[in-house]
Amino acid sequence: LDGGTGIGDDCAVVRIPKGHEALITTDLSLEDVHFRRVWHTAESAGHRCLVRGLSDIAAMGGKPRAAFLSLALPRGLPQSWADRFLRGFLKLSSQFKVSLAGGDTAESPSGVIADVVVFGSVPKGKAVLRSGARPGDSIYVTGELGGSAATLNLLSSRRKKIRPDDFPQHFRPMPRIEVGRLLRENGVASAMIDVSDGLSTDLAHLCEDSGVGAEIQIKAIPVAAIGKSARAVDLRFALHGGEDYELLFTAPRGKTVPSRIAGVRVTQIGRLIRGRKMFLLQGDLARQELLPQGWEHFRS
Amino acid sequence: LDGGTGIGDDCAVVRIPKGHEALITTDLSLEDVHFRRVWHTAESAGHRCLVRGLSDIAAMGGKPRAAFLSLALPRGLPQSWADRFLRGFLKLSSQFKVSLAGGDTAESPSGVIADVVVFGSVPKGKAVLRSGARPGDSIYVTGELGGSAATLNLLSSRRKKIRPDDFPQHFRPMPRIEVGRLLRENGVASAMIDVSDGLSTDLAHLCEDSGVGAEIQIKAIPVAAIGKSARAVDLRFALHGGEDYELLFTAPRGKTVPSRIAGVRVTQIGRLIRGRKMFLLQGDLARQELLPQGWEHFRS
Repeated sequence: LDGGTGIGDDCAVVRIPKGHEALITTDLSLEDVHFRRVWHTAESAGHRCLVRGLSDIAAMGGKPRAAFLSLALPRGLPQSWADRFLRGFLKLSSQFKVSLAGGDTAESPSGVIADVVVFGSVPKGKAVLRSGARPGDSIYVTGELGGSAATLNLLSSRRKKIRPDDFPQHFRPMPRIEVGRLLRENGVASAMIDVSDGLSTDLAHLCEDSGVGAEIQIKAIPVAAIGKSARAVDLRFALHGGEDYELLFTAPRGKTVPSRIAGVRVTQIGRLIRGRKMFLLQGDLARQELLPQGWEHFRS
Repeated sequence: LDGGTGIGDDCAVVRIPKGHEALITTDLSLEDVHFRRVWHTAESAGHRCLVRGLSDIAAMGGKPRAAFLSLALPRGLPQSWADRFLRGFLKLSSQFKVSLAGGDTAESPSGVIADVVVFGSVPKGKAVLRSGARPGDSIYVTGELGGSAATLNLLSSRRKKIRPDDFPQHFRPMPRIEVGRLLRENGVASAMIDVSDGLSTDLAHLCEDSGVGAEIQIKAIPVAAIGKSARAVDLRFALHGGEDYELLFTAPRGKTVPSRIAGVRVTQIGRLIRGRKMFLLQGDLARQELLPQGWEHFRS
């Protein structure tokens, strides 16, 4: 923990390197809202609660340094579930050398409640914001989109039994820490956000904060393929489905952006325009307005 | 927010002064565990959720800089309740110039859930820990003890109607930020903790982390008086009742400790001894072992 005293005192003490500033993100994950015990293994639930925060740090080009977990468990929940939840959490945190620096447990009147804080740092003034994009910038996305939401759709339709290992996009999505860091270090990204609520919604956030509009080429969107059969998911999941935790970023037109960064595919999907509207383009043939469709977590 | 970009991006960016390190504390507050809508006004609930974290920063001798609120509200909760909760939260945060730098809202399947993160800072290596006390050090406590728990007892016995303004110890406890800072700056405190779980439990934490035992003079304990009649509360509330948010600290025997710091009464209640046990003393007449009695929040 970089010389911090860590867990056990009234607060965690975390040192950040000279010339860095602190990044903080907090995410509340609720049973039956963000995960379900019948659908998700405890390990997957623990992983998914943490990835939300790590991905936010990635989207700033930051380095995650410490995580805090507040866990409220209903009476009668098997201890083994809590143990496996923590195992999933710690397996992901250790992959990124992030210490569990604090947190507590409580009894929940109903359902598992996990609040996760991730603390990170970034060189002073260098965080990649949502607001730095300009008309003319190209729009890029890492990895593939829609895999997580399409898997959730399979789970809720219960048409088939699902093996978590065959659907890592949903059960074990990875935060793009390295990609985010490299994009920041190389001064490539003018603006960045993670795709947690879905492409249409997160692109709308970036456009709003930067005061720009966008054109997306439908054909260019990297659509995820899921399951053993590697079937491509429906376009609507790639456009509006959340929880992929890929990075959506923009770069000035002249910048060279490699097609692969830190082993992760990077795809240009469109460009920013003046105005505030977003459009979907089918080559030069068709142009329709793209409206942000809020990605709702599943409901009972 | 000290030059931070604040709310609205993927993370909050918080600058901390040169030569400082970060303090982080996180507290999950649950309806019917930490507060009840029939007992607590929404303003009081908002205040009480935040004071937990501010008090943890005070106990390190730190300065709180930013707060984060994740709030999950059950469907059907009146918007006015949420508004007044936030008002209570913000009234307290603004008293200490702490910005609300982030957070989010979600729908809760059952009951109000509030997770509060408080971010602060302290000069590098200067945080007052629980582990710095030595045998022979004197033990001090700020303010009075037991007022919050005794009020809770009144609420649960429902013997009388209660006006929140007459019972500020419970409805609007104040974090001892200034006292903590002065104790740290003047190098007075060898160890410090806040009294959130009750004197017997929090003293046990300090003793355990410092590897010492303690003797407490019963007569010296500053017992709170509550209500309009200012009736002194039962000793057991002062010994074991939680949520007073006073500071419990130790100082080497030679140090001069004023009887009032930043307007708050400071009382010597005992001294640390070798060994690991805690004792209650009645002058020179009697000596009985003091066992930590876990302060349980109320249960349905």
